[in-house]
Amino acid sequence: MTQRDDARDAARRHLNEDPTLSLGDLAARIGIARATLHRHFSTREALLTEIGSASLDSWEESQQRSEQAAAIASGDPVRLRACIEEHLRDCVADAEEFGFALTDHFLSHSPALVERATDLETRDVAMYAAAQQAGVLRNDLPAAWLSHAVWGLMIGSRNALRAGDVARRPLEDIVISTFLDGVSAR
Amino acid sequence: MTQRDDARDAARRHLNEDPTLSLGDLAARIGIARATLHRHFSTREALLTEIGSASLDSWEESQQRSEQAAAIASGDPVRLRACIEEHLRDCVADAEEFGFALTDHFLSHSPALVERATDLETRDVAMYAAAQQAGVLRNDLPAAWLSHAVWGLMIGSRNALRAGDVARRPLEDIVISTFLDGVSAR
Repeated sequence: MTQRDDARDAARRHLNEDPTLSLGDLAARIGIARATLHRHFSTREALLTEIGSASLDSWEESQQRSEQAAAIASGDPVRLRACIEEHLRDCVADAEEFGFALTDHFLSHSPALVERATDLETRDVAMYAAAQQAGVLRNDLPAAWLSHAVWGLMIGSRNALRAGDVARRPLEDIVISTFLDGVSAR
Repeated sequence: MTQRDDARDAARRHLNEDPTLSLGDLAARIGIARATLHRHFSTREALLTEIGSASLDSWEESQQRSEQAAAIASGDPVRLRACIEEHLRDCVADAEEFGFALTDHFLSHSPALVERATDLETRDVAMYAAAQQAGVLRNDLPAAWLSHAVWGLMIGSRNALRAGDVARRPLEDIVISTFLDGVSAR
């Protein structure tokens, strides 16, 4: 890793703790000169955009690793269910790694990032729709809602980790079970 | 309503559309002089804090309207289930009204608001724990997680409304059913 990558990763971790930190605050917390951080990232927005892009890279890699497109094309319920579970596990990992970026208003109004996120979301919605078609998921709910619900549970996961209310290890199974089975006693 | 209240409500609606707007941007969108908005709210932070406080008022009123404390004390499964459903309906209404405030980093790091939100959240967690005790909700999940999951679904609701993916009318039942029953086909 270069010094620039190290600075970006350290900044990401500090922003996860306090997303209101300025570039100057971040340099102080990382323990590097403000001028050094400024040399790597000309503005706070440039730094945030790079972290936001990395979180979208991670989302896209997750779709590829789980062979999402092939699972959708197959229409196979077993593959689709496995693909959804893998997606939820990756969501928890990303919630931990990129926590602040999930709710950053600058990032969620950055046209280039929004365009790419919309594209990735469209693929997830196609996965949910295929799973509904294959009898894996309820088909009385809009497929787009399922994607919004998972996004919400991702933010809930981040907050649960931050608050120390749920341990990292059981959280993935908890998210999967909440989403698929619901929380009603039966 | 006073002109100040009108300005605050108009600002809230514009911030729901674009939470990155400055005080100057907001004055322009509302159609009032920048000096007028500044006279009511000395800083953007003061305006946001007041909107954040109003959203916490709404949360507290919801707990009172649903007689949450009495439902918890009763331990009655029917009352607890009704209380949770009413809470989820109010969450959707607040997601629509105070959308941007749910994910505003300034507000979520404002000590006075965080202290009050933590207090309100503690009461919700007590409601979920009582519902687990009464056999209404699964007791294999941490009660605090149930509160984080609902918070997440509230953000998912806001995003679904914003994107125009789900209509306002069916959304409350969709959120209740997603939370309680899960989305797996059975």
